[in-house]
Amino acid sequence: MKVSVCRKAHFNAAHRLYNPKWSFEKNQDVFGKCNNPSYHGHNYNLEVWVKGEIDKETGYVIDIKILKDLIKSEVEDRFDHKNLNEDTIEFKNLIPTAENMVVVIWNLIKNKLPKHLDLKVVLYETERNVVEFDGK
Amino acid sequence: MKVSVCRKAHFNAAHRLYNPKWSFEKNQDVFGKCNNPSYHGHNYNLEVWVKGEIDKETGYVIDIKILKDLIKSEVEDRFDHKNLNEDTIEFKNLIPTAENMVVVIWNLIKNKLPKHLDLKVVLYETERNVVEFDGK
Amino acid sequence: MKVSVCRKAHFNAAHRLYNPKWSFEKNQDVFGKCNNPSYHGHNYNLEVWVKGEIDKETGYVIDIKILKDLIKSEVEDRFDHKNLNEDTIEFKNLIPTAENMVVVIWNLIKNKLPKHLDLKVVLYETERNVVEFDGK
Amino acid sequence: MKVSVCRKAHFNAAHRLYNPKWSFEKNQDVFGKCNNPSYHGHNYNLEVWVKGEIDKETGYVIDIKILKDLIKSEVEDRFDHKNLNEDTIEFKNLIPTAENMVVVIWNLIKNKLPKHLDLKVVLYETERNVVEFDGK
Amino acid sequence: MKVSVCRKAHFNAAHRLYNPKWSFEKNQDVFGKCNNPSYHGHNYNLEVWVKGEIDKETGYVIDIKILKDLIKSEVEDRFDHKNLNEDTIEFKNLIPTAENMVVVIWNLIKNKLPKHLDLKVVLYETERNVVEFDGK
Amino acid sequence: MKVSVCRKAHFNAAHRLYNPKWSFEKNQDVFGKCNNPSYHGHNYNLEVWVKGEIDKETGYVIDIKILKDLIKSEVEDRFDHKNLNEDTIEFKNLIPTAENMVVVIWNLIKNKLPKHLDLKVVLYETERNVVEFDGK
Repeated sequence: MKVSVCRKAHFNAAHRLYNPKWSFEKNQDVFGKCNNPSYHGHNYNLEVWVKGEIDKETGYVIDIKILKDLIKSEVEDRFDHKNLNEDTIEFKNLIPTAENMVVVIWNLIKNKLPKHLDLKVVLYETERNVVEFDGK
Repeated sequence: MKVSVCRKAHFNAAHRLYNPKWSFEKNQDVFGKCNNPSYHGHNYNLEVWVKGEIDKETGYVIDIKILKDLIKSEVEDRFDHKNLNEDTIEFKNLIPTAENMVVVIWNLIKNKLPKHLDLKVVLYETERNVVEFDGK
Repeated sequence: MKVSVCRKAHFNAAHRLYNPKWSFEKNQDVFGKCNNPSYHGHNYNLEVWVKGEIDKETGYVIDIKILKDLIKSEVEDRFDHKNLNEDTIEFKNLIPTAENMVVVIWNLIKNKLPKHLDLKVVLYETERNVVEFDGK
Repeated sequence: MKVSVCRKAHFNAAHRLYNPKWSFEKNQDVFGKCNNPSYHGHNYNLEVWVKGEIDKETGYVIDIKILKDLIKSEVEDRFDHKNLNEDTIEFKNLIPTAENMVVVIWNLIKNKLPKHLDLKVVLYETERNVVEFDGK
Repeated sequence: MKVSVCRKAHFNAAHRLYNPKWSFEKNQDVFGKCNNPSYHGHNYNLEVWVKGEIDKETGYVIDIKILKDLIKSEVEDRFDHKNLNEDTIEFKNLIPTAENMVVVIWNLIKNKLPKHLDLKVVLYETERNVVEFDGK
Repeated sequence: MKVSVCRKAHFNAAHRLYNPKWSFEKNQDVFGKCNNPSYHGHNYNLEVWVKGEIDKETGYVIDIKILKDLIKSEVEDRFDHKNLNEDTIEFKNLIPTAENMVVVIWNLIKNKLPKHLDLKVVLYETERNVVEFDGK
């Protein structure tokens, strides 16, 4: 009998979508205004869902403070107020689409999470564009 | 390893809930004020979730513009600023409850979507009443 | 020293925007798809703001229950699940634009409100279109 | 072919997180300011999701009014404007964490729900802390 | 030429509405379930609006970090995870209605704010009940 | 008797806060991580409020489509998916703080708006940081 627990967070970052193997024209064709060479940016909203048994002593699946600190060290400190293409190793050779970002964030958190807990990450690039990844 | 991608949209429509095989009294009993013969209306909010592998070249599961255009042609152009009972063939013989609407919308989008992508549709009739369908 | 108190409410209605003195073509030109003769509809969200001195005995500007009941009798019972053009006397001869609606609602509530209280009404026709009226 | 239907609700309550088998210091260590002996409180937001086949006659999975009444009698009447630790039998011997609350609420609703319907409950303790339980 | 700048914050607290000069019955009559002697609680959301000239060197009306720290020291540290009636001197002899709370918070912040800045405070007791005070 | 009408919009942009007359250290001291030389970014949400008399023939203060087009040409086309510091003339020599941005946007719209209409602009840099300007 497992309960899911969610903590929300957010960070603000600049990025550019382009594939260095393609011409500027092909990038413009595929990525449109997201290919702006001087970058644009977003307020990213994040939901981190962790699923597991309730601990009988605490009534917690996970102490939300542990989850909050994990999100801070693995996601916010790494990406907040950064240029994803220029300032991070994760997106040096990976296009920072929302899809690639949600997989990167899932792996960063999964690596630090106790093994018995399931993980799902939801990332809002804008209020209207959302991605979700649960490792499957 | 599959990622879900969501695009949100909305449309405004009028409708009436009633079963033509029943008396006005029975309709009133089952559907209450939703049975108003001169119609009432809603701002419908829509979430269209598409699930698939990330394309290595683009970093996309699906170009969100394709999804946006699909929602426009299949849903918004069909239902926005319409009377669902009077102006649409989909609800000529089908009661436009949120449940029936979400199945209709799922089928309309599924028919135009590449076969390898999974689809889930969430429809908000009001901020407090929501329905969801994933084809299963 | 005056404090403002707000109560939120909502109602769902159908309407059509057209001026009966104009041709269908002119109405189409001015009101576009809002001129659909079979109507369309909205979830209207309402904020009713009342401003006055705090009563020393209760700590209230107005008992929020009084305000809630007033909104129910004057607005919700009158407009919820109605066709504004067909089912209401207020919009028999008045185009139910958000602007006209907010003035009508302001007057309906003002008439029943204790005289010493100021009133402001905010009406959301959609999440993106809002109107506001304070009687001045 | 099943559709999910959601009804949202909310209630306001006071609570304190502590394990009576522990010292005050250990409780302080585990629960921090949530261990305040004079209590603190929350606006809880609730989503109740019910999944089943669409009834051909009504177009409903469940009459939303039945669901609304069920939420009122089982959740709102029991917990709204209450002190969870002091005023309820459910949390006399169970720590009112969001995790324990969502399981309690799931069971209360499940007991009254027609057997053929699946149930999922989502509980927002704050805008940023959410839990979810579907009985599995 | 003045610009307004807003910072949002939130805190969670328990409270009870009652006038100690009245009988339990009269309190019940006026405050209803808010008179529960074991308390209930809320997630309070706060908007602090500060108005002034833009500083030419910084482009700021006020460094939002200063405002954030001020809200933390004057409001969050004082009221978050507290019982307003039991744990605070501000509401020892003042009924903690939203109206009284917004005036108290306005005064606490005003006292620490540079004199040339105007102040308005908005307090959400729930998503539907809001109060506002600007010192006039 | 004047009614206010609001249209909401949004745009995504990158920016950096720094004063070119200062050292990097002083900029870091004043603007912190907002001084990142490779930029960061935001989803900006915009509310444009226009106030005037209701036109008797149309029931409109302003045709919302005119307002929508004005926001598109003056704000979205200019700033959406842009680097404010690099790609715009407005912020070549002006720090793109939210305060400076709201004044720039107010002037851009005011110049194109019919003279008899009052204008107020609200700009959300994040969900928690908001600025407002009405020209006074």
